[in-house]
Amino acid sequence: MADDYPGVDTFVEDTAEDIAKMEIRGAATIADAAAEALAVQADRSDAATPAAFRAQLRAAARRLYETRPTAVSLPNALRYVLQGIDGETVSELQESTITRAEEFQVDLEQAQERLGEVGANRLRDGDVVMTHCHSTDALSCVEAALDAGKHVEAIVKETRPRKQGHITARQLQEWGVPVTLVVDNAARRYLDDADHVLVGADSIAADGSVINKIGTSGLAVNARERGVPVMVAAQTIKLHPDTMTGHTVAIEMRDETEVLSEAERADITGGNPADEGLVVENPGFDVTPPRYVDAIVTERGQFPPESIVTLMRELFGDTTAEPWEA
Amino acid sequence: MADDYPGVDTFVEDTAEDIAKMEIRGAATIADAAAEALAVQADRSDAATPAAFRAQLRAAARRLYETRPTAVSLPNALRYVLQGIDGETVSELQESTITRAEEFQVDLEQAQERLGEVGANRLRDGDVVMTHCHSTDALSCVEAALDAGKHVEAIVKETRPRKQGHITARQLQEWGVPVTLVVDNAARRYLDDADHVLVGADSIAADGSVINKIGTSGLAVNARERGVPVMVAAQTIKLHPDTMTGHTVAIEMRDETEVLSEAERADITGGNPADEGLVVENPGFDVTPPRYVDAIVTERGQFPPESIVTLMRELFGDTTAEPWEA
Amino acid sequence: MADDYPGVDTFVEDTAEDIAKMEIRGAATIADAAAEALAVQADRSDAATPAAFRAQLRAAARRLYETRPTAVSLPNALRYVLQGIDGETVSELQESTITRAEEFQVDLEQAQERLGEVGANRLRDGDVVMTHCHSTDALSCVEAALDAGKHVEAIVKETRPRKQGHITARQLQEWGVPVTLVVDNAARRYLDDADHVLVGADSIAADGSVINKIGTSGLAVNARERGVPVMVAAQTIKLHPDTMTGHTVAIEMRDETEVLSEAERADITGGNPADEGLVVENPGFDVTPPRYVDAIVTERGQFPPESIVTLMRELFGDTTAEPWEA
Amino acid sequence: MADDYPGVDTFVEDTAEDIAKMEIRGAATIADAAAEALAVQADRSDAATPAAFRAQLRAAARRLYETRPTAVSLPNALRYVLQGIDGETVSELQESTITRAEEFQVDLEQAQERLGEVGANRLRDGDVVMTHCHSTDALSCVEAALDAGKHVEAIVKETRPRKQGHITARQLQEWGVPVTLVVDNAARRYLDDADHVLVGADSIAADGSVINKIGTSGLAVNARERGVPVMVAAQTIKLHPDTMTGHTVAIEMRDETEVLSEAERADITGGNPADEGLVVENPGFDVTPPRYVDAIVTERGQFPPESIVTLMRELFGDTTAEPWEA
Amino acid sequence: MADDYPGVDTFVEDTAEDIAKMEIRGAATIADAAAEALAVQADRSDAATPAAFRAQLRAAARRLYETRPTAVSLPNALRYVLQGIDGETVSELQESTITRAEEFQVDLEQAQERLGEVGANRLRDGDVVMTHCHSTDALSCVEAALDAGKHVEAIVKETRPRKQGHITARQLQEWGVPVTLVVDNAARRYLDDADHVLVGADSIAADGSVINKIGTSGLAVNARERGVPVMVAAQTIKLHPDTMTGHTVAIEMRDETEVLSEAERADITGGNPADEGLVVENPGFDVTPPRYVDAIVTERGQFPPESIVTLMRELFGDTTAEPWEA
Amino acid sequence: MADDYPGVDTFVEDTAEDIAKMEIRGAATIADAAAEALAVQADRSDAATPAAFRAQLRAAARRLYETRPTAVSLPNALRYVLQGIDGETVSELQESTITRAEEFQVDLEQAQERLGEVGANRLRDGDVVMTHCHSTDALSCVEAALDAGKHVEAIVKETRPRKQGHITARQLQEWGVPVTLVVDNAARRYLDDADHVLVGADSIAADGSVINKIGTSGLAVNARERGVPVMVAAQTIKLHPDTMTGHTVAIEMRDETEVLSEAERADITGGNPADEGLVVENPGFDVTPPRYVDAIVTERGQFPPESIVTLMRELFGDTTAEPWEA
Repeated sequence: MADDYPGVDTFVEDTAEDIAKMEIRGAATIADAAAEALAVQADRSDAATPAAFRAQLRAAARRLYETRPTAVSLPNALRYVLQGIDGETVSELQESTITRAEEFQVDLEQAQERLGEVGANRLRDGDVVMTHCHSTDALSCVEAALDAGKHVEAIVKETRPRKQGHITARQLQEWGVPVTLVVDNAARRYLDDADHVLVGADSIAADGSVINKIGTSGLAVNARERGVPVMVAAQTIKLHPDTMTGHTVAIEMRDETEVLSEAERADITGGNPADEGLVVENPGFDVTPPRYVDAIVTERGQFPPESIVTLMRELFGDTTAEPWEA
Repeated sequence: MADDYPGVDTFVEDTAEDIAKMEIRGAATIADAAAEALAVQADRSDAATPAAFRAQLRAAARRLYETRPTAVSLPNALRYVLQGIDGETVSELQESTITRAEEFQVDLEQAQERLGEVGANRLRDGDVVMTHCHSTDALSCVEAALDAGKHVEAIVKETRPRKQGHITARQLQEWGVPVTLVVDNAARRYLDDADHVLVGADSIAADGSVINKIGTSGLAVNARERGVPVMVAAQTIKLHPDTMTGHTVAIEMRDETEVLSEAERADITGGNPADEGLVVENPGFDVTPPRYVDAIVTERGQFPPESIVTLMRELFGDTTAEPWEA
Repeated sequence: MADDYPGVDTFVEDTAEDIAKMEIRGAATIADAAAEALAVQADRSDAATPAAFRAQLRAAARRLYETRPTAVSLPNALRYVLQGIDGETVSELQESTITRAEEFQVDLEQAQERLGEVGANRLRDGDVVMTHCHSTDALSCVEAALDAGKHVEAIVKETRPRKQGHITARQLQEWGVPVTLVVDNAARRYLDDADHVLVGADSIAADGSVINKIGTSGLAVNARERGVPVMVAAQTIKLHPDTMTGHTVAIEMRDETEVLSEAERADITGGNPADEGLVVENPGFDVTPPRYVDAIVTERGQFPPESIVTLMRELFGDTTAEPWEA
Repeated sequence: MADDYPGVDTFVEDTAEDIAKMEIRGAATIADAAAEALAVQADRSDAATPAAFRAQLRAAARRLYETRPTAVSLPNALRYVLQGIDGETVSELQESTITRAEEFQVDLEQAQERLGEVGANRLRDGDVVMTHCHSTDALSCVEAALDAGKHVEAIVKETRPRKQGHITARQLQEWGVPVTLVVDNAARRYLDDADHVLVGADSIAADGSVINKIGTSGLAVNARERGVPVMVAAQTIKLHPDTMTGHTVAIEMRDETEVLSEAERADITGGNPADEGLVVENPGFDVTPPRYVDAIVTERGQFPPESIVTLMRELFGDTTAEPWEA
Repeated sequence: MADDYPGVDTFVEDTAEDIAKMEIRGAATIADAAAEALAVQADRSDAATPAAFRAQLRAAARRLYETRPTAVSLPNALRYVLQGIDGETVSELQESTITRAEEFQVDLEQAQERLGEVGANRLRDGDVVMTHCHSTDALSCVEAALDAGKHVEAIVKETRPRKQGHITARQLQEWGVPVTLVVDNAARRYLDDADHVLVGADSIAADGSVINKIGTSGLAVNARERGVPVMVAAQTIKLHPDTMTGHTVAIEMRDETEVLSEAERADITGGNPADEGLVVENPGFDVTPPRYVDAIVTERGQFPPESIVTLMRELFGDTTAEPWEA
Repeated sequence: MADDYPGVDTFVEDTAEDIAKMEIRGAATIADAAAEALAVQADRSDAATPAAFRAQLRAAARRLYETRPTAVSLPNALRYVLQGIDGETVSELQESTITRAEEFQVDLEQAQERLGEVGANRLRDGDVVMTHCHSTDALSCVEAALDAGKHVEAIVKETRPRKQGHITARQLQEWGVPVTLVVDNAARRYLDDADHVLVGADSIAADGSVINKIGTSGLAVNARERGVPVMVAAQTIKLHPDTMTGHTVAIEMRDETEVLSEAERADITGGNPADEGLVVENPGFDVTPPRYVDAIVTERGQFPPESIVTLMRELFGDTTAEPWEA
């Protein structure tokens, strides 16, 4: 494999393998490891020329990228570092790479807290938020609002099929936030009592679409109809750079047993295990068009969804080519 | 009690008691029994004058009505019979009452089948319907379409909290209809594959609103946004005459354990049984405004929701007073 | 003039003159007088044949109608009486006319109270209504809700140019209703605190449009955008039968000094009295399309605006010809 | 064939054959002939009992209906006559049938003129109408407005594929109406200059949908977006009674050469006559939902589309069964 | 106080005091003075190191900022200067600061005229604008259009409670622009005659919302419904940088006597001075969501409201921290 | 003429004349020639100072610009080159200009292919696109999708008056794409079968509006109503920099005979050649507001229409002054 990635350091190799084996997992953790690996690659580089250094760095990035090309935070980390390096000599390039990687890591570490403060500023004392699924980015906004002495209440949708609303409810309970738990079907009725819909994001596309837990888009449409603003909390590592080139985000189809147990299936089909007349579809996410979202809150400030592409280009480069393929 | 309802026959008394004790239950069964009771009252009447006869009949209707004033089919049966009687003599009034009651009972027996044929006419060969909850009125439209040789497929929402979508799926499976089962959160995504949203109704109000299983209104809003027409199947006994005088339909709040088991609650609250910070709201129904409904299908034909009040007045009278209080 | 209206009784003549001179004025008073006049005409008729009787009655109606052809309650009274008379002999026709006129007068007397009860049923305990202008029909709904023991609060728009909102505020104050007074420009902001928009009507057209005090339509558009239902309270004498034949309702242009005092004008134009560059437009009413109205509340019950034409035809006849011209 | 229709008069047979052979054609002509045939059937009946008379009349109606079951004016004529007959004796029934048929024929003759007057009332002096296709009902509104001394201008869409807009333009030119002719693609741009969209209808369904020349629905959607009201002019013989029972109106697919000449096709496909990759679709009509239509103008007055079902039931009966099958 | 702001020049102190005492007031004047003060601070700096210089400059900025933290133009001036300084030596930093401050001051002086030219380009000869309140930025667009030889007319809303529409009318009169003055309630009716809604802004938020005189948002909603584009004229000093971090703009509640005089209040309450049942709410501004605004016109060109955040970041920095706190 | 443009090279003169005479034509060809001319101007410059060089270059740009000031690609080429030059010496400026011009030319050559790849990424295997008019940018997206092995089908609107849909159909046929050809009036009906509306652009304005072939805006409004996303394919040379300063794009009015042949006109007017009652309007383009467009696909990636101004400023400069006038 090393032949495919000439000059790539073993530390990068090890990191790549850990990501591939999912020993390194979670959007932030992967991104942090990838930036670290590029810094080590730069530090240990034996390149004789700037061109050689850049080639090695691109190879290292490609090696890392190809472990999990669909993980949105991974290419973001790589793009961020690569698009920020600058220098006339190998030594300058080394320093620049290391500095840029550190910058990324520091930002990453503080991102959720900063994001929370931005989101909290949108909440007034006494506001009621309606949540969907469980998102630590979204909850960090509530936490920061509480820290700022505001009273906040929550209407929590249970979020079938996996009922992550229960996790949200538990966290809010611990913080002393009064919670009203409802089934997803009851959302429109309780929107009349909500001041905000507050959700996270799995990723955000260049056309301003928000990819998030299945049910988000239906909630957003109803929120607009009821006059309730929709606020999406998402660190910038959720911005999906592939979408700048028109790529759509593949939606994971999850296991049917999350929706229908074996016993329930048997009850419907009369126990015929081969029954093909009953199909269960269980998409993990859906796509909310930007026109139903009022603001995307990031650690870099808040943005209308239609302008997020500008932030994306600023952070991760404006090229339509992948930087590791240049 | 007989003193409160002078001249009321014992058969009426017995029927009233059976309704009160819920030995007679179900919208159609109650309506049928109430019409029958009025016919018996008329048949056995010893009234000397038309005025006395009418007073007895009103008393009988009031006796029946007061057993379960919120059951929508009960006042409908009473109003239908009372508003159709006519005659100059006691004997003519007796005959007229009995005839009117029989007419109501015959119509009631045939209503679902007739409704199904009307609804089936809206479905084209190959159409896909999306269903919410379980409604025999809605399913009768599918059944009639199948009987007419049309191929129909279904996307069935599970319909939390009670998952009556499973009952719908089972029925459709038995009829050989291909079923795709999804959680309620997935509705917007699958609306792109649906030609109709097809639901029943708990009751229908004079302002054209449809009261139906919680989640119907959110679905209807999304269906309009996605360009999918919404069809409500409802026998005319579901028309709610109290709403002609502005009354709103009370929405039943159901048991919280349908939404959250004891174990789930304990998991969220950390086992503190007295925790008041966690409220579960479980409304059984919601209200869909007429602007999101394309057609209401009844055994008397199809109607835009905005004109259903005309049918209501035609069938059950146009007075703003309760006929048994006149 | 008697020559133009052969066989018309002097009582009718006197009533017509009083209406023309505005000694009889106000929608309800005019309607009552017109019905009374037709009853007297019938009672005193010397017609030898049913045809002659009918001709006299039509002439009387025409005489009355032509005094103020734009007053909506006047043709309603005439149409209501004329379309309900029936009989084979002069005597039967006389009796029928008198009965019908009395029926109209009795209904008229009770209309506002009945309407109030219907409207009150739409209000829940604790609801907040936003009002525009001053309407006794609209206020009767609040009064009936208070009588039923409900707590109601009000956001009162001042309603420039004549600030009739002050009259509404005073009435509500007397009833102990908490009032928040705002300028018309603040309506959208306070719609978030309102459960209903509640307005009266100057007249209602066959296409479901509501003609009411200038500013109603802009409020209704915003209410829909904010998710607040709009309720129009209007006695059936406000239904405008001319509109059944496509006629539009002429909008009165009122005096410019209601909008701009002489001093204010001078201040703007620099005192040039002949300045034609500054025009003040002061329409008294505007037209709200039916799609922005949720319910029209009358003494005959509530109706979606799109079905009000059915009530109009039922009460005032379904002919496209004027009954007095037949 | 006479065996299938016992007791049916030869005049009815002859009329039926003429309709079948399309020697009698055109919506109004067919309707007139059908009413006439029922009147003759009634006049010549040898039935001994009322029941026999009614059976003969139903057979006659069925005979006529089955010649062209999709022609909307034919069942309307039959339903109108059948639902209005009344009587205790054969002789009374005969008279009633003849009277009812005559009434229908008289109304039919005057319908377009009356409709025009109603529609003209919606037009103000100086208004600009935008037209689609060619409709004598729609043009009768303009004609009546001109007769009333109003100045009217027109923006005429050419209406591909058959460019019936040219016929409309010619007629308007003859009346001295200034015409701006545009291609259909230019409609949205010129809607800003229009006060009304004015179209006819091929038929109108019980759910308030308007079936009219292809392109009407797209125009109506844009008219709503631009704030221009849409007015549909349609005599009541265009109301489609089959749709009361949920039937949808079949849309005729017309010849492809209206869209693409042989030469044009050859130019596209390179002359390969068997090329199946190029399909031309040429539907004659489309369906405009009622929410995009402001008023339907008929000879019986104007109606919101959502209430047209009430008129339909009033004129043609409210039964869900076909009257000739009862 | 000097202790809190080490190294801050007395000129800065004096300027800060003048701003605090409102001897320096008005958005542009404050901004100009703040930039000037920073230039003087730089010029007179005795800092020995770049770091010391920067610390002094931040202290000066903080001193100025804290005089009126809610005045939007003040932080804009500070941010603009601070984010543009650059240099390796104290001397370079001094020069850079002075240059940047001058640049800001020059731009500020020319901003309204440039903005007017941009806005005027959107107006065609013969267009009618509808205005709300009084805005010199908005009027500069009209003035530039007049200067370019275009004929423009205006519909002026009076803008209760303070009727600043009269000031607008007077200015337009002086320029020879024909003015139609209407009450705010008449806006929707006259939107049919308008080609543009043209308003200014109090401030503009990072999520694209426009904060402007109360009534703007209701007007914008109606303009969209009527198909009239909304154009907001606002110099870039109106962009509100605090909103980048999610802060909402506090809405000033103004004196109730602007809405209701003492005499009017007494008339409503019956003279009871302690009456708490009557509350007057008088917010000075409201918030128009970006989806109802077609373009924001600035001296830097026109922008869709959703992209204004990009301009904001470009001009005032993209940090989520306050530059004077870094 | 040379006097007006001091120091302008003859090559520039020749190019300018060729553009003026339309010997150089077509958006891309003009842009390429203009960039080339600036490079030659730089290369041959005899300027003694950087200031002189810049003055010459501006003069050359002005010379070129004034040949066809309404051609959108021409000022784009000039702006792109001018805003990218940088250097302290004449020699550096020369090199910089030449490099920048080459960069523009290279990008231009690859732009359509790159754009096609971006657009193709939005199309899924099996998707159906609806096209309007003929656009090589739009078709390049289909071609790239086919190259990527995706199956694509097309519904092609004929696009009156010039029926460029036939050209589109022919191209798609050649690529083996199944085509359904329909008249423009049939668009709404067939939108239910489409997954995307895919169109090109004549130019794109800073407020996000898309100027494209007449009929685009009406299609986009219907696509939104039917829930079908709208994708505009446009190289960045279609971005209209004049619109940054508020300028509107003039819409060409084309020859009336494209709409109405002489013979057709004679048929309508009865052959009266001087008839002024019949006006034919034939605008070539219309304006689609950004809210009806989901994505603009360029060779630089995809953008929501509301953010395209950011790309415009990045590529062509953010000044509100014309760079050749500075």
